[in-house]
Amino acid sequence: MTVNEKALMLHEQWKGKLEIKAKASVRTREDLALAYTPGVAEPCRKIAEDEKQVCRYTMKGNTIAVVSDGSAVLGLGNIGAKAALPVMEGKAVLFKEFGGVNAVPLCLDTQDTEEIIRVVKAVAPAFGGINLEDISAPRCFEIEERLKRELDIPVFHDDQHGTAIIVLAGIINALKVVGKEKEACTVVINGAGSAGIAIAKLLLKYGFLDVLMCDIHGILCSKSTGLNWMQKEMLKSTNRSDREGTLADALKGADIFVGVSAPGIVNKEMAAAMKKDAILFAMANPTPEIMPHEAKEAGARVVGTGRSDFPNQVNNVLVFPGIFKGALEGRARQITDEMKLAAAQAVADLVSEEELREDYILTEAFDERVPEAVSNAVKKYLS
Amino acid sequence: MTVNEKALMLHEQWKGKLEIKAKASVRTREDLALAYTPGVAEPCRKIAEDEKQVCRYTMKGNTIAVVSDGSAVLGLGNIGAKAALPVMEGKAVLFKEFGGVNAVPLCLDTQDTEEIIRVVKAVAPAFGGINLEDISAPRCFEIEERLKRELDIPVFHDDQHGTAIIVLAGIINALKVVGKEKEACTVVINGAGSAGIAIAKLLLKYGFLDVLMCDIHGILCSKSTGLNWMQKEMLKSTNRSDREGTLADALKGADIFVGVSAPGIVNKEMAAAMKKDAILFAMANPTPEIMPHEAKEAGARVVGTGRSDFPNQVNNVLVFPGIFKGALEGRARQITDEMKLAAAQAVADLVSEEELREDYILTEAFDERVPEAVSNAVKKYLS
Repeated sequence: MTVNEKALMLHEQWKGKLEIKAKASVRTREDLALAYTPGVAEPCRKIAEDEKQVCRYTMKGNTIAVVSDGSAVLGLGNIGAKAALPVMEGKAVLFKEFGGVNAVPLCLDTQDTEEIIRVVKAVAPAFGGINLEDISAPRCFEIEERLKRELDIPVFHDDQHGTAIIVLAGIINALKVVGKEKEACTVVINGAGSAGIAIAKLLLKYGFLDVLMCDIHGILCSKSTGLNWMQKEMLKSTNRSDREGTLADALKGADIFVGVSAPGIVNKEMAAAMKKDAILFAMANPTPEIMPHEAKEAGARVVGTGRSDFPNQVNNVLVFPGIFKGALEGRARQITDEMKLAAAQAVADLVSEEELREDYILTEAFDERVPEAVSNAVKKYLS
Repeated sequence: MTVNEKALMLHEQWKGKLEIKAKASVRTREDLALAYTPGVAEPCRKIAEDEKQVCRYTMKGNTIAVVSDGSAVLGLGNIGAKAALPVMEGKAVLFKEFGGVNAVPLCLDTQDTEEIIRVVKAVAPAFGGINLEDISAPRCFEIEERLKRELDIPVFHDDQHGTAIIVLAGIINALKVVGKEKEACTVVINGAGSAGIAIAKLLLKYGFLDVLMCDIHGILCSKSTGLNWMQKEMLKSTNRSDREGTLADALKGADIFVGVSAPGIVNKEMAAAMKKDAILFAMANPTPEIMPHEAKEAGARVVGTGRSDFPNQVNNVLVFPGIFKGALEGRARQITDEMKLAAAQAVADLVSEEELREDYILTEAFDERVPEAVSNAVKKYLS
């Protein structure tokens, strides 16, 4: 039985990977009077008097919504709200299993930016945070920005920031392995959607100076046409010498490649044209931009992928559970850039100097230290 | 320690009466590959091909949203979304504990009718049903009607229909006790909000012919002023002889009183003016419209209240868990009037002829036969 067949069979058995359980049992009249009427009126009154008390008496303080419109789901594309539900349930499972965070999947029957903003704002009172998921670019940028501004709870688009944080964590350690400084490195990011753009932003924030973004048409530069507003915005901080050309041109002499794009689009020749001790994160799923053994044969020193069956899995499950665990425990109103940088450093630090080597730059998904480490990093930067 | 003090303490300990639990455990890489990527893509694809498959592979088929805008919460009134959350969590606990139904509390940060309709429609894909809760009249009528028309999943405003069904169940059995026929009875309903109106509608549907509705100004009649559109609508089927007067006037010679109004507004004299073998359901909480012993002293034969510490508790917890259990199991698209009537009859039938007596017309909240009986009644009328 293939993984797909087995997954399908299990999903049919589960009929939902989550369930809502009562923590308050209701076996007697007294139970009923305490968990429901008349007793429940008392916490209601307290919150009505002072709405800041809401996390004290309800699930809000440890519950987030996992919100998607189904417009950019995994490698499947725009499959809509209902078809996105298995993914959102899966994400909620990971939030609970890794971070101890209750997560409710909300799949929205609209792909209109304003409508999504409106709906998320309307449902916000019951939630302590909003994890946006699988919403296509560039709408995801506006939705996240607006919600961050208009809500008093943290809003986090994991496809952007979870990915960016884990990539940065991997790069921090990969640089140690190859002995290079971030300021001296050229980074090429292939894929100018939500993940690629967030990675570029976070790397710049971390201190990289020379970042090139590429899409299917080649290097994003002043002559590029058809860029969306966020891609245009990115030209202000990336590609400062306004280089033109293809992805192959971009890779000539580059130190780091980060692929969040498509299978097999980097060949050995392109990888060989990179600088000595190159770092490649080929994260297209399930087939990477270049297979690790090919990249190695072409002279790359550190190679990561999205897959668990190769070394150096770059997996944002190391990030998002701890991010919300920390944000909720610390009652953060925002996930700030400082928190993201600290989270990346915290994940990187879980691999000790002694352990660190070419094929071990990131700890694995089931390392139990991870959520706590990320959570603590977030809580250090509470505003 | 009072119930209120204990309830507050417990709510602070619980910090949420619900939790989201993973049914799919994630302990190994294989688990992750099956519950999340890459395996999860397979059920997504199946649903994308045929969205009717969504209940086969997700939690939608056994999960409802408990939706409130906090505008009419318990006896507390318009306390808003956050303060309503403890009640919605409590309701969700009851759905799970009594009906096995997963329920997610959604408290909306808007009290605009159109906005509520829009938001509920947008979040509907992940849910198999919508339970509206504690939304003030007359907005609740339009919200429910519109959602019923515009969604393909059952929408049920429990304050209306759950209450109406349990009242009808109680009346069915009370009539047996007193030996009267529904067609010959005059029913006075005090309270012309969501519950009162739904009760009137369901009693008429059941076959009562003479129903009077009263509010704080007395009997609703053609001369009444300030009625909302639904109250005006109700004049077409209630108060057919267009009687005028106070609640006291209405009760003179009435057979049945149903109070969903305010504490102590029926005195012994008013109760004594009712017909012989009167039935009184005084359901104001926690203090009924008339205390049971007073009603009895005034000559009433069957007296019910909303309270568990008096006989004949008229409690919609006997109804709503089974309603959604049946609707979800049967994949009902609507909760029809036929289902409501059948549910009332099913609850009434749980008290056998031998058991039936003045102070035992309804089984108690913890009778384990109830959800199944109600659920089966609903499933008999699947369209």
